[in-house]
Amino acid sequence: MPADNMTTEKKPDVDQSAMQIRASVLHGAKDLRIETRSVFPPSPNDVQISIRSTGLCGSDLHYYQHYRNGDIIVQEPMSLGHESAGVVVGIGSEVSNFKVGDKVALEVGLPCETCDRCKEGRYNICKGMRFRSSAKAFPHAQGTLQDRINHPAAWCHKLPDDMSLDLGALLEPLSVAIQASKRAQLAPGSTVLVFGAGAVGLLVAAMAKISGAATVVIADIDAGRVQFAVDNKFAHRSFNVPMKRGSTIEEQIEIAKETVADIAKISKESGGEVGEVDAVFECTGVPSCVQASIFATRPGGKVLLIGMGTPIQTLPISAAALREVDIIGVFRYANTYPTGIEVVSKNGPDYPDFAKLVTHRFRGLEAAVEAFEMAGKTKDDSGKLVIKVVLETGEEDGKANL
Amino acid sequence: MPADNMTTEKKPDVDQSAMQIRASVLHGAKDLRIETRSVFPPSPNDVQISIRSTGLCGSDLHYYQHYRNGDIIVQEPMSLGHESAGVVVGIGSEVSNFKVGDKVALEVGLPCETCDRCKEGRYNICKGMRFRSSAKAFPHAQGTLQDRINHPAAWCHKLPDDMSLDLGALLEPLSVAIQASKRAQLAPGSTVLVFGAGAVGLLVAAMAKISGAATVVIADIDAGRVQFAVDNKFAHRSFNVPMKRGSTIEEQIEIAKETVADIAKISKESGGEVGEVDAVFECTGVPSCVQASIFATRPGGKVLLIGMGTPIQTLPISAAALREVDIIGVFRYANTYPTGIEVVSKNGPDYPDFAKLVTHRFRGLEAAVEAFEMAGKTKDDSGKLVIKVVLETGEEDGKANL
Amino acid sequence: MPADNMTTEKKPDVDQSAMQIRASVLHGAKDLRIETRSVFPPSPNDVQISIRSTGLCGSDLHYYQHYRNGDIIVQEPMSLGHESAGVVVGIGSEVSNFKVGDKVALEVGLPCETCDRCKEGRYNICKGMRFRSSAKAFPHAQGTLQDRINHPAAWCHKLPDDMSLDLGALLEPLSVAIQASKRAQLAPGSTVLVFGAGAVGLLVAAMAKISGAATVVIADIDAGRVQFAVDNKFAHRSFNVPMKRGSTIEEQIEIAKETVADIAKISKESGGEVGEVDAVFECTGVPSCVQASIFATRPGGKVLLIGMGTPIQTLPISAAALREVDIIGVFRYANTYPTGIEVVSKNGPDYPDFAKLVTHRFRGLEAAVEAFEMAGKTKDDSGKLVIKVVLETGEEDGKANL
Amino acid sequence: MPADNMTTEKKPDVDQSAMQIRASVLHGAKDLRIETRSVFPPSPNDVQISIRSTGLCGSDLHYYQHYRNGDIIVQEPMSLGHESAGVVVGIGSEVSNFKVGDKVALEVGLPCETCDRCKEGRYNICKGMRFRSSAKAFPHAQGTLQDRINHPAAWCHKLPDDMSLDLGALLEPLSVAIQASKRAQLAPGSTVLVFGAGAVGLLVAAMAKISGAATVVIADIDAGRVQFAVDNKFAHRSFNVPMKRGSTIEEQIEIAKETVADIAKISKESGGEVGEVDAVFECTGVPSCVQASIFATRPGGKVLLIGMGTPIQTLPISAAALREVDIIGVFRYANTYPTGIEVVSKNGPDYPDFAKLVTHRFRGLEAAVEAFEMAGKTKDDSGKLVIKVVLETGEEDGKANL
Repeated sequence: MPADNMTTEKKPDVDQSAMQIRASVLHGAKDLRIETRSVFPPSPNDVQISIRSTGLCGSDLHYYQHYRNGDIIVQEPMSLGHESAGVVVGIGSEVSNFKVGDKVALEVGLPCETCDRCKEGRYNICKGMRFRSSAKAFPHAQGTLQDRINHPAAWCHKLPDDMSLDLGALLEPLSVAIQASKRAQLAPGSTVLVFGAGAVGLLVAAMAKISGAATVVIADIDAGRVQFAVDNKFAHRSFNVPMKRGSTIEEQIEIAKETVADIAKISKESGGEVGEVDAVFECTGVPSCVQASIFATRPGGKVLLIGMGTPIQTLPISAAALREVDIIGVFRYANTYPTGIEVVSKNGPDYPDFAKLVTHRFRGLEAAVEAFEMAGKTKDDSGKLVIKVVLETGEEDGKANL
Repeated sequence: MPADNMTTEKKPDVDQSAMQIRASVLHGAKDLRIETRSVFPPSPNDVQISIRSTGLCGSDLHYYQHYRNGDIIVQEPMSLGHESAGVVVGIGSEVSNFKVGDKVALEVGLPCETCDRCKEGRYNICKGMRFRSSAKAFPHAQGTLQDRINHPAAWCHKLPDDMSLDLGALLEPLSVAIQASKRAQLAPGSTVLVFGAGAVGLLVAAMAKISGAATVVIADIDAGRVQFAVDNKFAHRSFNVPMKRGSTIEEQIEIAKETVADIAKISKESGGEVGEVDAVFECTGVPSCVQASIFATRPGGKVLLIGMGTPIQTLPISAAALREVDIIGVFRYANTYPTGIEVVSKNGPDYPDFAKLVTHRFRGLEAAVEAFEMAGKTKDDSGKLVIKVVLETGEEDGKANL
Repeated sequence: MPADNMTTEKKPDVDQSAMQIRASVLHGAKDLRIETRSVFPPSPNDVQISIRSTGLCGSDLHYYQHYRNGDIIVQEPMSLGHESAGVVVGIGSEVSNFKVGDKVALEVGLPCETCDRCKEGRYNICKGMRFRSSAKAFPHAQGTLQDRINHPAAWCHKLPDDMSLDLGALLEPLSVAIQASKRAQLAPGSTVLVFGAGAVGLLVAAMAKISGAATVVIADIDAGRVQFAVDNKFAHRSFNVPMKRGSTIEEQIEIAKETVADIAKISKESGGEVGEVDAVFECTGVPSCVQASIFATRPGGKVLLIGMGTPIQTLPISAAALREVDIIGVFRYANTYPTGIEVVSKNGPDYPDFAKLVTHRFRGLEAAVEAFEMAGKTKDDSGKLVIKVVLETGEEDGKANL
Repeated sequence: MPADNMTTEKKPDVDQSAMQIRASVLHGAKDLRIETRSVFPPSPNDVQISIRSTGLCGSDLHYYQHYRNGDIIVQEPMSLGHESAGVVVGIGSEVSNFKVGDKVALEVGLPCETCDRCKEGRYNICKGMRFRSSAKAFPHAQGTLQDRINHPAAWCHKLPDDMSLDLGALLEPLSVAIQASKRAQLAPGSTVLVFGAGAVGLLVAAMAKISGAATVVIADIDAGRVQFAVDNKFAHRSFNVPMKRGSTIEEQIEIAKETVADIAKISKESGGEVGEVDAVFECTGVPSCVQASIFATRPGGKVLLIGMGTPIQTLPISAAALREVDIIGVFRYANTYPTGIEVVSKNGPDYPDFAKLVTHRFRGLEAAVEAFEMAGKTKDDSGKLVIKVVLETGEEDGKANL
């Protein structure tokens, strides 16, 4: 089994004291195996990290369930996991800003660093990006569900000593929300509507609230999720969308308009002005929600496309263009981790309770199957919402598990 | 027949020396009649203008041909015309910055001036906008195909003495191009692709070129139009798009991709880098062009939607969102006339030859039918391209025609 | 005594049922007199407002104390007051969005509405601005310390029924803070330093905090004020600046650098990174603070100039330019009132307690002298901080006082 | 003599076939010596470049004349030169996008690539920047006045085959102008004033013109330079500033105001509107010009600080802040070379004639003293303007000189 392939330097050809570690490796749909891999000492600019906490993401779940993610088909065994934090256990010879024992969050996408996009700071859309646990590039960049990995120090982020590693792992989806917030450039006092109250939707709502939006309304088909959002201070108000479906595009568009009218009505009843939503953050990818997003946004406002859904959709494009409602893409994130650390370091009675997002924890690489099965549910057997499932791994003592 | 209804002040109830003028009034599809209307002396903040040059726009043509424009149905007889320039023949009591004899271009959309959009300077998307020769609001704001109209001085723009009134009329469609250019925020040295080489597409290309785009490629189904664009310095390069049509959305998307590949190939052959188009200005509204616009734009680039076409379209939305290609609406214009006057005042051997856009001129209100029939063609009987048809009207001597 | 001159319409020449009201009028330094003025029924686009609450501003205080404000010399008797809220007591014939009894805040600067700046939404820097209680334009625009005034409905902002009129008056200085916040375009998670903990500095700090700054540090020479800031949730941290003064510019610059080093040291001791202040909001106008602002800002950050102080200052301009630290002016505000109403409508345990800013209230126009004398102090006789002094006026019953 | 120290990889400890090359090395004020240095084969990510053309910059000249540049004192012998282009003569093992014989321009500042500024694309203000021929960092990054250097391929820019290497060298100062243009975000049709018609001022004017400014006025104390600007299409209009000097700051400010009035008068006489300058690009660093820049800019406009002059200056700061005239720093450049290559690749009858900027050429490293002496003059003995002096070096045949 080859070593992890995300370090910046070539592997030495000579024999070296490679350490044997365990990795959770996907070989096919629902075929997750624990294997032994070699980890070499970190290259000069890398650190070696004992992975401790990994959140399971929707894309991981797609790979687990189907051995593909939309059009992207897995071509070789691949470790999953990219929402991760851990502890530094080794230091490359050129690395000076980390020490063994440091808690770190991993930024797992490694851009080329030389293209125009990288140089202008938008490395999230670098065409040469290698992103852990994504099968888009080949050979696949291996995910973090391994005991230890080497990772460039430049893409590790030191966490405060008192921050939990679960929160450290949460910085990855939070980064998407921060990217959305930065792209939205909300003016203070804005009114915001979020479609979708999954982990990303909740984080997006929280970031809009923290960034000064005066009113953040979150809408979802699941009444429990939107209640969760308000209870835990992720949003100011919530809306349980019925989400009927029409059989024709005309019916769909009509339903989208009705949804907006319903939201406006609720808004009006609670004193807000009808229809003046400055920005909609669309986190579902569902066509009727994307359609409703356009109708719901005020002239000159923005629709942020965050949810990944049907790649080709039918949209009321004139309703956007004729009102200068801009449709803004959000893909992953760039330069968000320092902000994320600031954001989850804070708390208060009105502040989003980020720790509550981790609804289910599993322990050890061998629990990966159980964790993925849970991640595939909307509620667990006791009826509790499933929002973010975390797999906690690694040694307590700073040494390898094997 | 009521007087024109676009002045800022109430009409006086008392009898006053109203002047009788002639107006070209649309009463039904292709039913254009010359009628007599009353024009009162200008209200305190208005000027009275003898209309001299009016360009015929696509929306005017729709009204002329169908007595409707898309979903908007004409509900009462309406004068057409909104691309106009003329000469000041009367001055309201509070107006100090105009004098009789001044050449002026009219900004014919009057926003409410009190809503949030107006106050923040985006008056083009004011919900209370009254726009001449548009049937959207009722009573309709009467168009400029009249001998004289009163118009608020604040929405008239003084032209240099040596500027032709045809160029003054051209400031209206040029304003759309300036709005597009401002919304695009092109960096110097950008590569730009324009779909559609009608009047607006040509003006959009010209503005991108003037604004510092290093390469402006214009694409159209008509080989003559794109040749015109390059010959008259509106664009650097041109591309004659075959524009096949597929019967299914998958075929359509495939054709859109092929179009992009063809453009990239041409680009490559002429030394440009494949696919790195910073912004596409879509001026056709045709679905396959909108689709191709998304595919043609580089990650992090922009698609500007300028052409008004099918209101509900099927789009490769993931191809936009996953590359942070933003879809930016352009609707009319705000704060563009001063820039437009600067732009058409300049000239030079490499400068777009704006005067060439006016390919056909007709004289007198009674020639309106003839002018509209010409505007409905792509070439005249001699095979000459029809780009912008202008109707020249009004008195030579500064007095009313009647 | 002439009537108030800020209405949009000419005064009628004919006799009309003018109402007699009382006004507090400044005739010279500390020469404040109560006089009788005529108020005509509101013009078509105006409302008549019974003024109820007026905050005293630093510029008012300068006029009161010196009959001038910097270079601006009062040339005719002038009512002071421009931070005001009241109750609608009369409605112009064209006004439909207000009714008698509505609570309103007044936006007291009336821009020309026709210049380029107005049309692009930056009406705060309109050269033709007429601003109440400012002697810059002649005749002076009379201030709000009058029983009733007529004011254009377009520049009145309806307040929620449950909002106090003192908070309504506070929207004016809050607007300056909102303008600063909008011009700063803070990214979420920013670190902010505010120089000056007077009313504007406190509001600026609060807006930065509300807008998503992760760390807002406020600095002032007065230990009590910075403590007030933290106690009432206007800022996260505070710093009591010693503010030594050097006799040469070199000594001054050195002291500015030391101040920055001190702040950095405090920042470091509390876990923050040294010197990485994203934006400094300078609210004092004192040269040593402006100098320190430049040194304190990280490369690529911004200094916002809010405090009005010495008009010509010696600045370490290379320390700004060579690090692309931009120096951004903030003058009054544009399009801020709707945001302000949203902002002061909210509350919570961690939210700035805006009501606390009003430290002293006086009752009735005849208390104006007493109120201005208090506004000139930093602490009252009991040692309580003086932050914002409000003069509450007007009738309880919706009728004129006379 | 140590080898050049700007490669990304450690020098090999083992013996290797180092090549001996010649370098022009500054040992003290006006003490320029030709010495022999070792150049190792390029490291994996480097290319080796035979330097062919180097423009002499003002900072080089300061080092040459004073062995210091403002506060920065040279601490060890240093090669000068940072405006350079050459030919690739060696390729690192990992480099795939260059081949021997390619013409390249060098971007000579190597940022750390890991700090927040680098990651967000503003690497020009990276605190860890190592910039060739600058003594700011120690050991100094050696300049390009050497036969050959190794340089990271990521910071080399391939030039079109038909572009002269002198134009390639000119891309460095042009980059400053592009940076200024990007930071200015000029709207199309803007009016621009440039202070200073040296090489940078001329390039800045050219970029403003190319970027769509309708009117670019350039001002300088030297009548010949401003004439040069207009003759060679770098600016539309010019102004020969008398540049009196006052003995007190009040006199200076008064002179600055008079200068602005003079410019406005000329503007008015030629039909432009008085005082409505959207942006001033200050390229002199002279206090009276910086002062005049503030006065000359319209409300809401921008002053771009490009010229490096007196580090501490007395400025009419209220005249900026109270009109929201923003003072924007411009330091070097980031992400400008691709644009620069586009810009100098174009030409036309109205296009700035960039090649004309190179007024004097010298040949061979041994001519460095002669070249620097010329660069220190404003005119040569024949009375011809000295704008950009270029030192052409290196082998014709692609082999090392020795």
